[in-house]
Amino acid sequence: MKIKIKDLKENLLKLLTKTMNEEDSHAIADCLIWAEMCGINTQGIIKLIGNNPLQNITPDYPIKILRETPVSAIVDGGKNIAILVADKAIQIAIKKAKETGIAIVGAINTYSSNGTQAYYVQKLAQENLIGIMVSKCPGTVAPFNSIEPLFGTNPIGFAFPTSDEPIIFDAATSAMTFFGVIGANTKGEKLPEKVAIDEKGNSTIDPSVVMADGSLLPFGNSHKAAGLSMLVELLTGPLIQQTLFNSETLDTEWGTTIIAIDPNILVDIEKFKINASAFIKAIRNSKTRPNEKIYIPHDKSRKKYQTALKSGLVSLDEEIYHQIFK
Amino acid sequence: MKIKIKDLKENLLKLLTKTMNEEDSHAIADCLIWAEMCGINTQGIIKLIGNNPLQNITPDYPIKILRETPVSAIVDGGKNIAILVADKAIQIAIKKAKETGIAIVGAINTYSSNGTQAYYVQKLAQENLIGIMVSKCPGTVAPFNSIEPLFGTNPIGFAFPTSDEPIIFDAATSAMTFFGVIGANTKGEKLPEKVAIDEKGNSTIDPSVVMADGSLLPFGNSHKAAGLSMLVELLTGPLIQQTLFNSETLDTEWGTTIIAIDPNILVDIEKFKINASAFIKAIRNSKTRPNEKIYIPHDKSRKKYQTALKSGLVSLDEEIYHQIFK
Repeated sequence: MKIKIKDLKENLLKLLTKTMNEEDSHAIADCLIWAEMCGINTQGIIKLIGNNPLQNITPDYPIKILRETPVSAIVDGGKNIAILVADKAIQIAIKKAKETGIAIVGAINTYSSNGTQAYYVQKLAQENLIGIMVSKCPGTVAPFNSIEPLFGTNPIGFAFPTSDEPIIFDAATSAMTFFGVIGANTKGEKLPEKVAIDEKGNSTIDPSVVMADGSLLPFGNSHKAAGLSMLVELLTGPLIQQTLFNSETLDTEWGTTIIAIDPNILVDIEKFKINASAFIKAIRNSKTRPNEKIYIPHDKSRKKYQTALKSGLVSLDEEIYHQIFK
Repeated sequence: MKIKIKDLKENLLKLLTKTMNEEDSHAIADCLIWAEMCGINTQGIIKLIGNNPLQNITPDYPIKILRETPVSAIVDGGKNIAILVADKAIQIAIKKAKETGIAIVGAINTYSSNGTQAYYVQKLAQENLIGIMVSKCPGTVAPFNSIEPLFGTNPIGFAFPTSDEPIIFDAATSAMTFFGVIGANTKGEKLPEKVAIDEKGNSTIDPSVVMADGSLLPFGNSHKAAGLSMLVELLTGPLIQQTLFNSETLDTEWGTTIIAIDPNILVDIEKFKINASAFIKAIRNSKTRPNEKIYIPHDKSRKKYQTALKSGLVSLDEEIYHQIFK
């Protein structure tokens, strides 16, 4: 189904303001609508159905700052919705990076995932900052040669301002996302080859096996991808006062770390933006095999977003929409 | 051949001090010996033979600082040997990170590569800092779906202090290093499958084809690895006053960017180190398939380094040694 973005926002605000304040309702509505406009519907309004829909989450306590310096902060979410905590962390990162040139901000103790990294890092690029954002997730991925799901799917996101559209990248360090595994299971589909193993370490294409006691693999089943996942775990675990998992419950916690850099501390921002644009142009204009196309991260999502913006209409899953707005 | 480390250092200093000052000679000798002790002989004394051995390099001008803030600097190498420029950049990164909590330092305009990232990031970990170091190299790697070698092999290195040995990671974002391609060509060996393409984009296992007009692929031939290579290009290119390539000569320049973080700004350093050690221990103790072993980055190099340190002896390629010390 297609719906006017304006109407979707209105409906979402009506729903969300029943259980949360105006500001938080806007923040969540904006994040979900952005994901839907980009066609990333695993991070969209689907979060408002199921056993723990976002609108029903009760935090333990308000968001607070745990430790702070001019270049850093830890945002303790008090089990608030991760989107709200990440939004707060981004605001702090922007403020500090503009003041000092570079800042690192962690977000811990959140309810569930903050969704797509792309949404947050593009906010930094809009402020003429470079954003790097990494998140740790509950353990579903085996370290290299291991058969235990110790690591999360641990995405790495980044954005750079340019003279044109910002450069945006957002990818799991695992061979596929856990949302993808759940989706395949729901639809009765198989997984691709070489993305997952069962509890004994044998290859599996059965999503239910992965969900029960198997593991996803690092992307390309590479020790390099596993090493980068380790980097994410360290930056979003020990560095921001968290551990690999709670030693009592063995639950892994979510965690996000943002590094924001003002290019001006190293180069004139306008020169940076011109050169970053020229860089993307050189890639875009480079040769390919016949009938192949250059892949620039976020191109497809951006195209969908701009089409939605222009028409004022966004495509939604009709079934999900009617489950929410009965 | 095996030689006493003490004797190797003495011989290297005798050679190097003929063309450079005492301090620089020590810096280069230490870096090359470290690589040899780790068994990384592509980054060792081999750099003292060939057409442009390090001891014969004449810089254009002394190393200078181009732009500086309390959290950042660009080190202009004046075409000095990259090892010396990277050493200087690391010293500045350590000083600034200790003062402000986080720092970003770029190194440009160097002669050739600074070699293994591991050598530099471990220096940061020894100072109880987290080090992330990325370097751009001349274009030998095709962006995703492209068949032009626009990107370098662009390694990512990082190190974290722990209660035990530091965590160290260092890997090219390409499927293999360009040194590896040259090595295979010299020995008349073939490349592994799926690491390289010829100028038309067809798979090749011939190293001479890659060296002539082919390209290496991103690791796992993955758009994710290509995206991370793009991150390295942006951080070591436009951000530190460089471009993808010189628009006149089309030469790509070397470039390095270091981010140093003092964990204390976010968490008590001792707590950080205990949790980082526990993290590695959990991976090391995790289950594997029968007869397989957990892979922890830098384990093999560290073992070789420690064996060399204990015995006082390092293994060298005899032919290379005798070429240098005729």
